Amino acid sequence: MPASPVPGEFRSGPLLLRDAALFTDLYELTMAAAFFREGRRETATFSLFARRLPDTRAFIVAAGLEDALEYVRSLRFTPDALAWLRSLGRFDAAFLDHLADLRFTGEVRAVAEGTVVFPDEPILEVTGPVIEAQLLETALLNICHLQSVLASKAARVTIAARGRAVAEFGLRRSHGSDAGLKAARCAWIAGCESTSDVLAGKTWGIPLSGTMAHSFVTAFSDELEAFRAYARAFPDTAVLLIDSYDTIEGARNAVTVARELATAGRRLTGVRLDSGDLLTLSREVRRILDQAGFPEIRILASGGLDEHDVERLLALDAPIDAFGIGTRLNVSADAPSLDLVYKLVRYGDRDVLKLSEGKETWVGSKAIYRLSGPDGRAAGDLLALADEPPPDAGEPLLETVMRGGELVRPHPALNQIRDRCAAQIGALPEGLRRLGGHDTYRVRPSEALRARQEKAVAGARAR
Amino acid sequence: MPASPVPGEFRSGPLLLRDAALFTDLYELTMAAAFFREGRRETATFSLFARRLPDTRAFIVAAGLEDALEYVRSLRFTPDALAWLRSLGRFDAAFLDHLADLRFTGEVRAVAEGTVVFPDEPILEVTGPVIEAQLLETALLNICHLQSVLASKAARVTIAARGRAVAEFGLRRSHGSDAGLKAARCAWIAGCESTSDVLAGKTWGIPLSGTMAHSFVTAFSDELEAFRAYARAFPDTAVLLIDSYDTIEGARNAVTVARELATAGRRLTGVRLDSGDLLTLSREVRRILDQAGFPEIRILASGGLDEHDVERLLALDAPIDAFGIGTRLNVSADAPSLDLVYKLVRYGDRDVLKLSEGKETWVGSKAIYRLSGPDGRAAGDLLALADEPPPDAGEPLLETVMRGGELVRPHPALNQIRDRCAAQIGALPEGLRRLGGHDTYRVRPSEALRARQEKAVAGARAR
Repeated sequence: MPASPVPGEFRSGPLLLRDAALFTDLYELTMAAAFFREGRRETATFSLFARRLPDTRAFIVAAGLEDALEYVRSLRFTPDALAWLRSLGRFDAAFLDHLADLRFTGEVRAVAEGTVVFPDEPILEVTGPVIEAQLLETALLNICHLQSVLASKAARVTIAARGRAVAEFGLRRSHGSDAGLKAARCAWIAGCESTSDVLAGKTWGIPLSGTMAHSFVTAFSDELEAFRAYARAFPDTAVLLIDSYDTIEGARNAVTVARELATAGRRLTGVRLDSGDLLTLSREVRRILDQAGFPEIRILASGGLDEHDVERLLALDAPIDAFGIGTRLNVSADAPSLDLVYKLVRYGDRDVLKLSEGKETWVGSKAIYRLSGPDGRAAGDLLALADEPPPDAGEPLLETVMRGGELVRPHPALNQIRDRCAAQIGALPEGLRRLGGHDTYRVRPSEALRARQEKAVAGARAR
Repeated sequence: MPASPVPGEFRSGPLLLRDAALFTDLYELTMAAAFFREGRRETATFSLFARRLPDTRAFIVAAGLEDALEYVRSLRFTPDALAWLRSLGRFDAAFLDHLADLRFTGEVRAVAEGTVVFPDEPILEVTGPVIEAQLLETALLNICHLQSVLASKAARVTIAARGRAVAEFGLRRSHGSDAGLKAARCAWIAGCESTSDVLAGKTWGIPLSGTMAHSFVTAFSDELEAFRAYARAFPDTAVLLIDSYDTIEGARNAVTVARELATAGRRLTGVRLDSGDLLTLSREVRRILDQAGFPEIRILASGGLDEHDVERLLALDAPIDAFGIGTRLNVSADAPSLDLVYKLVRYGDRDVLKLSEGKETWVGSKAIYRLSGPDGRAAGDLLALADEPPPDAGEPLLETVMRGGELVRPHPALNQIRDRCAAQIGALPEGLRRLGGHDTYRVRPSEALRARQEKAVAGARAR
């Protein structure tokens, strides 16, 4: 079990958020106050799921569960937070006293991090007294959204790279410190080989990679001098950035340094291309390196790339050994958000739903069963009620991870999550792995779910 | 002056990052190690600017300076960080000893937060010993990028809203905790009226707003009962969400509650529409409210809106009094990244630049002068060298904010930044305020800058 959290502080690796119970939308507190005033203490179930997917996503890699559960464990209103809430004049003393004693006492069911999920399938479900469960909405969405966005995008990149190494190095344009750290974590989960983010390396043991910036090259009076200086410092691990002035000249300078290193019994690891026509340049640079007798020097490519660039370059057999992917991965440029929601699906002994146009949701606490085809690939999911008997076949994906506000088991190790993600993506039908024009996966509601839904819709309309 | 930071800890409001010196790309450390080994201690100037703008941005609202300077002040390698770096086996003891004593001792020049800037114009410039200045790259980019992305997007939303109130409420889909907090701060800078983010309210005193979620409505046996319960808790500030089942019925239920409140001498503040055809629904709901004698009840609209939706609805005179803008603002959906870079522009007594295809940058430490036209609007900028005489006219935008590693003055208050931003946006030519098909602003390099650039290009090519 992880150490008990400091009350009111949410820790995520080296990042610490004080007064984390206030990391929420005001309406969570106003609703809680109204529930409290009305004496509402019923057990509620909220389901966190994607309503639909962006056009460029065939699936979601669920991530963020570890942080989500740590947030739940941290939920406390500190005296300082309460004093400030009191100062707003919006909340009465009885409600604030209630908040002072509030902890999460309920249950969380979730899919394991690294699991592939589809629209309408819960990433997690929270069941507990309505005020407690409601207050968790904003933070749980923020946490699961960020990491699921990033892991889902990174999965596209590693699928496109077809086994070539991908280094995540977009920290500089990630949306802040939390997103920067999580990009490294989620890229690792989804199969990237390394990150440039030193703090992520320290926090999670993710392998680090890094080369040099143009500033290093331009700080020296000429490129060759810069390369030699770098090779003196890192005679066995240097990757030289060769496009500061002219990429072909840069490749020749790299060869000079490679020969000097070889004479000393060391070796140049690689060169990096960061601009220009990467297909043509990678071919010319490969030829220069090979002709000089250095077939083992690797070529890394970078420069605003995304999964489509990677796919195109590899389809044309560009001799690129590894890709550095930054900004477009780290902000999930084509789909920076997912339509994740946290919806009340059961209240007391009653199924609930809203009928808002285009936003109708399935009622009840769910189970997900993943069916396998004869090829061992995923062949469709059954979305069922948690309390109906399981089907004859199908792997259940939701499990209880918190009971009575306590973790049921320690968090899985990050490599275990990475392995799960690889297995999940490996089991996807080919049609879901296509970057463009992907197939749609079949998620079928069970008969019992349909029946309960129809009853609830009729009930809601009658109101 | 703000309190001295705890060495090695970067604080931003309630968020605390430990070992913040490691919040960097590995290559900053490997370059620093190579500079160190070579005895390179020259003074370097790095410029942080946008190379170009996304198609949907006519300008950038520079933001993040306060955090950037606090990061610089926090720069320390803790014993724990150094021990971990040692364990990597990549860095020698002399370099790690150098890091142990490293602080930033140089100068920072910057534009004030809330200033509008254009491509090639430095948001900030760092001048100091090359290792210190290089090590700041990743974090300064991460910080200034996030906040400039968010403030620039928020400015589009408030321009579109033409004085109508905009509430930022996208915390749930911001990219993590840092981005969530900064979205509230940047939206406030750029003219939004409130945030839903309670912790941002506590941290910066930004006004809070919030209504209710569908979960609240669906937790009650019918909508009217839910509305009454909420109104009992908040008899003077309630905004009722009326689209859970049927918006028109919801409006009628809101009228019922408004009458009951009026009888008790209280008043209903507003209703919120969150789905469906907002133009038609807002008109019908306005008519229902007016006919019932409640012209003062405000209509709030939300539901996946962005600045184009706001512009379209207001162009059609939709009777909407305020907008709640979430996800698309908080992730800057149309332009989630800016091409911000941190480039070495001067090293020792030499101007430097790279020639990489499509990535050439201006040399030297800069000044920016903003010229005003006869209408008082911004009429073009002069991008000059910091050491050339200023022009006869034009407001200088870059000022020294840190000297010898110390703040030159306290950070400006947030409201001062907001006022500056309003003035800056107010001074933009109309053609830059158009959401689509905007004009391009003229940034002219000075003669002296051109001459120095040509000389540097010739020098670089000669190498």
